[in-house]
Amino acid sequence: MLQQIFHSRIYLPKNEKTMALLDDLKWRYATKKYDATKKVSREDVEKIIEAARLAPTSSGLQPFKVILISNQELKEKLVPIAMVQQIVADSSYVLVFAAWDKYTDERIDKIYNYMADERGLPRDKFADYVTRLKSTYLNQPAESNFVHTARQAYIAFGVALAQAAELKVDTTPMEGFDNDQLDEFLGLREKGLKSVTIMSIGYRDNEGDWLVGMKKVRRPKEEFVIEL
Amino acid sequence: MLQQIFHSRIYLPKNEKTMALLDDLKWRYATKKYDATKKVSREDVEKIIEAARLAPTSSGLQPFKVILISNQELKEKLVPIAMVQQIVADSSYVLVFAAWDKYTDERIDKIYNYMADERGLPRDKFADYVTRLKSTYLNQPAESNFVHTARQAYIAFGVALAQAAELKVDTTPMEGFDNDQLDEFLGLREKGLKSVTIMSIGYRDNEGDWLVGMKKVRRPKEEFVIEL
Repeated sequence: MLQQIFHSRIYLPKNEKTMALLDDLKWRYATKKYDATKKVSREDVEKIIEAARLAPTSSGLQPFKVILISNQELKEKLVPIAMVQQIVADSSYVLVFAAWDKYTDERIDKIYNYMADERGLPRDKFADYVTRLKSTYLNQPAESNFVHTARQAYIAFGVALAQAAELKVDTTPMEGFDNDQLDEFLGLREKGLKSVTIMSIGYRDNEGDWLVGMKKVRRPKEEFVIEL
Repeated sequence: MLQQIFHSRIYLPKNEKTMALLDDLKWRYATKKYDATKKVSREDVEKIIEAARLAPTSSGLQPFKVILISNQELKEKLVPIAMVQQIVADSSYVLVFAAWDKYTDERIDKIYNYMADERGLPRDKFADYVTRLKSTYLNQPAESNFVHTARQAYIAFGVALAQAAELKVDTTPMEGFDNDQLDEFLGLREKGLKSVTIMSIGYRDNEGDWLVGMKKVRRPKEEFVIEL
């Protein structure tokens, strides 16, 4: 009997498992001060990046990259660009999400050739679909492409924030930085990338963070959802 | 002894718990055919929306809403707009993520007054910050505001997709629809909202879905991450 209960616990009953992410999301907050003496493990940061890599994107194009910065000197040089004082310097890692500046023939072909190869399909399997994609994106100005590629990066950003919360790793999502300066500093332009958002990763400083004890406030459900 | 093991399993050791989301993300895929006979519970769809509500957004403004559509007739009327044949009609629920068309004085004040009230702080507590926010956003054209509000909706979209996967509920992220037509159909314009993305929610049809058996393909890690 005990054995039976024991087994049913290993394979978690649905309700117990499925509450986990909501609890993690309530636990997380935009950390304002990190404990510089506590370092997030390499294993954990890899999981956060892996979650971003697994995130869905429009037509599977994954039109962005994640720049992982762990070097302390580099992080400190980011402080004036990120305009967030010590957050960046005290965190263990900084991830910069940078989206493709535009879609190109080559970029789209590369993804779809790889997809076909990985699935053991002929490379022309998705030819019609790829033609439609190209006729849509390649006829738009680069700025419109970038509006779209940036949005895809934000999906992955959301998924990565959720993954960090599950690991009980703190994060700060950051936008208020000088994008051009950051692109220049990281050499993104020549890679055809433009920074869109930053995530600092570390462990909260419970004493020094003014936000840590404050109530998490979200718009009430009635104002957030419209049911039709 | 058994009792001890048993307890250590109830309170999951970190490694076991923390692998969960990555496994869920590998399990999920953009469902192409739903089993119209299986309905996702109201409880589960509420959890998915709650995850979106808890997602972080820039300055906590949550500049978007989620439109929940469960009515079958409405879902069927969406089919020609969403341009995805039966996916929308066969799913249990459709969520439309719609972002603020622009920032306004009133919208920003409402959020920050609510935040102060909820935290038991005087309403002028964030006055300087709010002034800075307004001087940034209200001096931009509406289109620039919308680029920003849409991105915030995408963070929540990512978090909601992760939540659905944890619940083993299938989803289809969709963009290729006629935004203006959808806004018109849902009466979003007069609410100051513009649709950005759609999520169908349901259970996969294992027999009818051409994608279900295919390998999940993502760009290899070496191409996805740049380490500095």
